[in-house]
Amino acid sequence: MAKVSVSIPQGTRDFGPDVVRKRNYIFNTIKTVFELYGFQPLETPAMENLDTLMGKYGEEGDKLIFRVLDSGNPFSNEFLKVFVKLIEIEKNRLGFAPSIDIFSFLQVDEHLNNLINSDPFKKYYLNRIKNEVSGKALKYDLTIPFARYVAMNYGKLSFPFKRYQIQPVWRADRPQKGRYREFYQCDADIVGSTSLLNEVELANIYATVFEKLGIKVEIKINSRKILTALAEICGGADKMLDITIAIDKLDKIGLEKVKEELLQKGLTKDQIIVIEKYLSIEGSNEEKLLQIKNIIGNNESGSKGTSELEYILNFPLTTHRSPLTIDFTLARGLNYYTGIIFEVKAKDVQMGSIGGGGRYDDLTGLFGVPNIPGVGISFGVDRIYDVMEELKLFPEQVHTGTQVLFFNFGDVESKAAFNIMHQLRTNNVRCELYHEPAKFDKQFKYAEKKNIPFAVIMGSKEIEEKNCVVKDLRIGGQQTISLNDLLNYKF
Amino acid sequence: MAKVSVSIPQGTRDFGPDVVRKRNYIFNTIKTVFELYGFQPLETPAMENLDTLMGKYGEEGDKLIFRVLDSGNPFSNEFLKVFVKLIEIEKNRLGFAPSIDIFSFLQVDEHLNNLINSDPFKKYYLNRIKNEVSGKALKYDLTIPFARYVAMNYGKLSFPFKRYQIQPVWRADRPQKGRYREFYQCDADIVGSTSLLNEVELANIYATVFEKLGIKVEIKINSRKILTALAEICGGADKMLDITIAIDKLDKIGLEKVKEELLQKGLTKDQIIVIEKYLSIEGSNEEKLLQIKNIIGNNESGSKGTSELEYILNFPLTTHRSPLTIDFTLARGLNYYTGIIFEVKAKDVQMGSIGGGGRYDDLTGLFGVPNIPGVGISFGVDRIYDVMEELKLFPEQVHTGTQVLFFNFGDVESKAAFNIMHQLRTNNVRCELYHEPAKFDKQFKYAEKKNIPFAVIMGSKEIEEKNCVVKDLRIGGQQTISLNDLLNYKF
Repeated sequence: MAKVSVSIPQGTRDFGPDVVRKRNYIFNTIKTVFELYGFQPLETPAMENLDTLMGKYGEEGDKLIFRVLDSGNPFSNEFLKVFVKLIEIEKNRLGFAPSIDIFSFLQVDEHLNNLINSDPFKKYYLNRIKNEVSGKALKYDLTIPFARYVAMNYGKLSFPFKRYQIQPVWRADRPQKGRYREFYQCDADIVGSTSLLNEVELANIYATVFEKLGIKVEIKINSRKILTALAEICGGADKMLDITIAIDKLDKIGLEKVKEELLQKGLTKDQIIVIEKYLSIEGSNEEKLLQIKNIIGNNESGSKGTSELEYILNFPLTTHRSPLTIDFTLARGLNYYTGIIFEVKAKDVQMGSIGGGGRYDDLTGLFGVPNIPGVGISFGVDRIYDVMEELKLFPEQVHTGTQVLFFNFGDVESKAAFNIMHQLRTNNVRCELYHEPAKFDKQFKYAEKKNIPFAVIMGSKEIEEKNCVVKDLRIGGQQTISLNDLLNYKF
Repeated sequence: MAKVSVSIPQGTRDFGPDVVRKRNYIFNTIKTVFELYGFQPLETPAMENLDTLMGKYGEEGDKLIFRVLDSGNPFSNEFLKVFVKLIEIEKNRLGFAPSIDIFSFLQVDEHLNNLINSDPFKKYYLNRIKNEVSGKALKYDLTIPFARYVAMNYGKLSFPFKRYQIQPVWRADRPQKGRYREFYQCDADIVGSTSLLNEVELANIYATVFEKLGIKVEIKINSRKILTALAEICGGADKMLDITIAIDKLDKIGLEKVKEELLQKGLTKDQIIVIEKYLSIEGSNEEKLLQIKNIIGNNESGSKGTSELEYILNFPLTTHRSPLTIDFTLARGLNYYTGIIFEVKAKDVQMGSIGGGGRYDDLTGLFGVPNIPGVGISFGVDRIYDVMEELKLFPEQVHTGTQVLFFNFGDVESKAAFNIMHQLRTNNVRCELYHEPAKFDKQFKYAEKKNIPFAVIMGSKEIEEKNCVVKDLRIGGQQTISLNDLLNYKF
């Protein structure tokens, strides 16, 4: 058999033991906090029907959906019928079965997709085959499958429904540093409630999780309602999209370019002066709120937005003072948010946002169940991992798998070791016996490579004397203790 | 927008909160035991290169592999070139762009696959397109990705390498009761060691896990070496496959049919008498070993097999007597096993095997790294779940998410509740506040539906008196306690 080249698909990763343990440390911390706040776990399949996903992520998003072929044989009968027919025609035209190099004779326009899209007949064929070939796809995020789940189980769920979900998603994006084709998302959402208490709880969850992980963060908060007010004041509600897009770029392109873009979009100089004033709001949360009220005046949407911000900021939070910072330049891109929006940044390290979320009016409407409002947050686990690596925040014990290695001295000693190990394992000590009676060096090396902190030496002499030698492999000391003491040893 | 029909792909499942908690109880129990025995976690991507998977599971298995299209657009340029060309030809032939109903005019042989396979030209086209369209697939099991991982990281790993892996796999099988297209596998393997201590540990892991889960099991053990010996005695080593296949069916078709099948495969009556004698071996493990020795005599493979069985059975195990039962009728289907094989059956319930495994000689050889022997076991999580449901073995606390619901009496009371809840959460009590000041009935119903065992009533009167009412919603009692006592209450 030919040697297979060994690799994994671009943009995917294997997670070895040390990385899994560190990732699980993050997942378990987040999960524990979600549960302390009454959120319940949900898991949805990796595959969704193509219909469920298509059209939900914009044109660019749709292109990044990984389709799954319908069965082991990727071609349906419908496809094969067309295909066989066309091959027959080609054979008849040529008068012979075309050579295997026929591909090289095919001269087709370079802009193949354009060509196809410009011919409705070809387009129809392709679409028909596309649908025949693939009716399923890998999920692109956790939000749409969650909305689909809520719509499907509407009658059975009790609302408000608070769920968390920690699962992988897939995107056919161009892989690059920090961007993967398979990665975990980590979401908590409450649907079926308009109460601002939900926003308060979610802000608390952010504060608690990052405190537990040891990451100092800034939790930014804004309201889409205030952005709506700004648009209404500066050119009308139909400018909301243009203004949001421009503001969202502020970090990347700077104020001058944002102003240029707004000018191009048809805003007047006076309107741009207002936006510039908006973007330059500074100070404490209280000072910012005073300034925003000057700008938006009595605008209804704006007043709602500011009073919601005030309500949340005045709530007693984990630290007994709000961990939230108003940031009116926060826009959260082009998504379905309609109320409060959040974004989290790590303080001591250069990194994009490590969390974000907000309130949406109607997500399940896409699946025929309208008027279920919700609010949710998400943790960017890959970035949180990178932050913790960079700041060396993973606790020592996360690196330890096996705690004790019993050295192997032969058959009789192995049996004695097994007996002791059984008792240690009952006491939740993770231990193992080296698999064969090898040289000391080899057994030490195994412990070292596997980062095992303790070794137990129990040869025939020790067994006879009912004791053993415990070696601390990190600091190098050793002591002889009775087997009874071994069972209560603090590894 | 048209209403989308809401469903999930055939053979996949959503897992709601209660099911996730029960499944996690099983996963965590198994995981904890794996770690007590020194196994380390590994995670591999959902997608593997098609090359990695194809040809590893037999012809039938290959057909069940879910292929993933290479990008958001399922058709490569190569495919489109051929396609556009063929459409052009069809247009020219007809003299017009065919109507949208062209599919109905196509009259093609019913046995389409046969037709295509019988024409090398068509077959070539299809294969070419298949490979263009899809170079990736969803993993079919955890064993091949593990072998691929070991081969890829050979230089970096320290051997013996003990890993466990708990992840979903996908098979395009026809869905039916208890058979899914997406399901979890749960494996532990040791590679790089021929020591029988590994088999002993794996048998112990089975015994420990099922004891912890409360499932009474029979752990069956046999050796492929003994089956080899039997084949050598009855018609030669080339009959191994026929004999194994026939024996594997014993449970389903009974002894007489097995004998018939062996006769058809060319075994003599004398040979079949030996096999019948083999299959009827009964008694204690010791008695069975005596009888097998009579049958296989001095056969080298057989002697190795029996002495390996004896070694494992004589080892001190968790229960201080072996939990293992020799079952010479155990064959474990058609796979790569070469030594000891295991299978686990639940005792008090009608169910197929809930675990299985065995020793293999060379798995990574498929990926260019030969001579790495290994041994592994697997847990059938879906069946274990069904057994536990049927026997009501899930512990009470598995059903509890939130422990305490604070009733909502309005804004002031909410803030007081938040403060108390923050302290309770610091003590790891899972609690939540009802999202709005609704009628008592509604708040009770929420607690009931969510299976929350305790409610805390803290209205303005209670806040003033610095106490609260704790209601036990399961048994119906209630008591008034101070807020200080609440913080130490045993929920």
